[in-house]
Amino acid sequence: MFFPQNTQVPGLSGERFQVVYRIAGDSTRVKAIATEICFDQTVELPEEIVPPGEVRDVIVGQIEKIEQSDYSAAVTISYPIETASTGLPQLLNVLFGNISLMPGIQVMALHLSGRILIEYTGSNFGISGLRLLLKAFDRPLLSASIRPMGLVAEALAQVAYQLALGGIDIVKDDHGLANQPFAPYEARVWRCAQAVAKANRETGVNCIYAPNITAPVDQIIERALFAKRAGAGALMISYGLTGFDALRMLTSDKRIDLPVIAHPALFGSFVTTPTSGISPYVLFGQLMRLAGADASIFVNYGGRYPYTPEQCQSVAEGCVVPMGHLPAIFPVPSSGLTLERLPELREFYGRDVIFHIGTGLYRSGHDLTANARLFAQQVQ
Amino acid sequence: MFFPQNTQVPGLSGERFQVVYRIAGDSTRVKAIATEICFDQTVELPEEIVPPGEVRDVIVGQIEKIEQSDYSAAVTISYPIETASTGLPQLLNVLFGNISLMPGIQVMALHLSGRILIEYTGSNFGISGLRLLLKAFDRPLLSASIRPMGLVAEALAQVAYQLALGGIDIVKDDHGLANQPFAPYEARVWRCAQAVAKANRETGVNCIYAPNITAPVDQIIERALFAKRAGAGALMISYGLTGFDALRMLTSDKRIDLPVIAHPALFGSFVTTPTSGISPYVLFGQLMRLAGADASIFVNYGGRYPYTPEQCQSVAEGCVVPMGHLPAIFPVPSSGLTLERLPELREFYGRDVIFHIGTGLYRSGHDLTANARLFAQQVQ
Repeated sequence: MFFPQNTQVPGLSGERFQVVYRIAGDSTRVKAIATEICFDQTVELPEEIVPPGEVRDVIVGQIEKIEQSDYSAAVTISYPIETASTGLPQLLNVLFGNISLMPGIQVMALHLSGRILIEYTGSNFGISGLRLLLKAFDRPLLSASIRPMGLVAEALAQVAYQLALGGIDIVKDDHGLANQPFAPYEARVWRCAQAVAKANRETGVNCIYAPNITAPVDQIIERALFAKRAGAGALMISYGLTGFDALRMLTSDKRIDLPVIAHPALFGSFVTTPTSGISPYVLFGQLMRLAGADASIFVNYGGRYPYTPEQCQSVAEGCVVPMGHLPAIFPVPSSGLTLERLPELREFYGRDVIFHIGTGLYRSGHDLTANARLFAQQVQ
Repeated sequence: MFFPQNTQVPGLSGERFQVVYRIAGDSTRVKAIATEICFDQTVELPEEIVPPGEVRDVIVGQIEKIEQSDYSAAVTISYPIETASTGLPQLLNVLFGNISLMPGIQVMALHLSGRILIEYTGSNFGISGLRLLLKAFDRPLLSASIRPMGLVAEALAQVAYQLALGGIDIVKDDHGLANQPFAPYEARVWRCAQAVAKANRETGVNCIYAPNITAPVDQIIERALFAKRAGAGALMISYGLTGFDALRMLTSDKRIDLPVIAHPALFGSFVTTPTSGISPYVLFGQLMRLAGADASIFVNYGGRYPYTPEQCQSVAEGCVVPMGHLPAIFPVPSSGLTLERLPELREFYGRDVIFHIGTGLYRSGHDLTANARLFAQQVQ
């Protein structure tokens, strides 16, 4: 061995965290892959060349439980918290770094110990904080997007105004609105914030505007601060485009202190194959809370994209399952939310949900305010 | 319609860029999905409610070509460059934001126009720059990782020393070495850099040390600057853990000016399903060059992970295919690189490659320097 037997590893607390993986295969294959995960995600050496000692006994992942079904198993593996400490990127690395490259492994659930969770400020508002801002305590919330890309700032602001007037709670930029020459970021955000404020003065209710601050990573904070000065009531960011940790950076910055809506653009590839990747429960639920989002957009069932009610239910669970001090956040189903389906979806998701009305709103007719009102009446 | 017919879009150059998607299905389904892509990736409105005018005629993606095979088609779609301008996150969004959530679509290739490319500084060294640094002009290069996680900084530095002494060109941190209490970042980087410098004085050759600077996104630049002060000759970053744009931010920072090796941790999910996600050609080749990496690690064929020679060949092509002013970069196949396979792999990849020797090196025996020498002799 190239390092001595019985090598000690200093600085270990003895505390471990657990990850549940779904591994495809029969029990023999599952056992082999689970063992590979334990080594690949930590020491990256094959089992036979790691000598006895704390590296092998503590640093290497440990198989805690295998629940075998016909063609796959749920395998719980524990890691010492120190392997994954000092930041979200390294936690993601231990969770699914190397093995993301191997088909047939899916991250199903995280069980993070208190000492890891304490590194994360988590969501600043969560369900209760966002409800307080909106003064909407006992009903589902509604959000809608300002579209389409291509309109100038004034025209987008007009759309924002109409949606706010119709009783939408959160009027957000479409996630495709960035800083394009036809509607530059500052002009758009300024005008849309003004438009929503005007609608609020007229209605007396409290719609909030959430601009899209997705940007090159070194411009995100600056965009967020501008949005706040312009009067935005929340922010939206596509963590797939910026990286998970940009969301964490944003929500850890005390100067900003606005609710954050997380959009899954680009990261769909983690969930399109049910046997590989990261489960919707973890990706859209648990990881969003760790990174500090207050509301997490995902694809609803029954729309154009093929997701199941079970997957959507699991996202909703991942948004509220106990995770130490991290508050519960809003699941935001999007796609396929028509007026006709709202009663069914209200039954399905319960009260603590933000329904994101997309094309359903634009399809109902030319008067956006009237369309929005029809949706708003359904959730009162 | 909620916005007028014949709405003009100001600020358009008329220039478009092309994305080739593989879409699963027969010609009817392919046509339908291709049309959805054109709308979903831009205006996010259904075709029937977008009135005639520049939004529809220019902003919406356009199907340029469909090459139908039995069960899928290669579909070229063009977008106006302004939709994707002002940064890598928004380019990724137009490329594959929403539709990443739909199974059966794969990004196969990018054809970026000069006006988009000009936004990117690209790789600072590339193949020729890295060869110049290493004074190794006409042979494959060798890299190896300092392992395992769990050793203290002094012990890791000893591993680095042995590898450098054996003739490895690039001795890099294992990507699991972050800032753990048993080997904190600064102590590790300082000692490993010293160890490699010592080996260089003894051998007279020029091995470079590449520390892993993957970190919370607001600490990356600081870690890179520390590494440079400590004497690192290159840097490694896992862009999946930090986000693509953190790699772009790093390589655009003129104070740093070190070659960057890109590691794919976490982003394997984009390539594990051949019918969905992003092709290895784009992910490990084209996007890495756009983000500015000088060398791109990917999984070699014939190792424990199931990748094909064709996939590996395509990565190598993506690393060198003409892309405006962006230099060609090194493909870095990793996994399954044994002494026995080196001749075959040298034939396969040609001269412009960095062979990353992983467990093959540690498996060959207890004397790492002797093991490294055996590999080094093979590439002379």
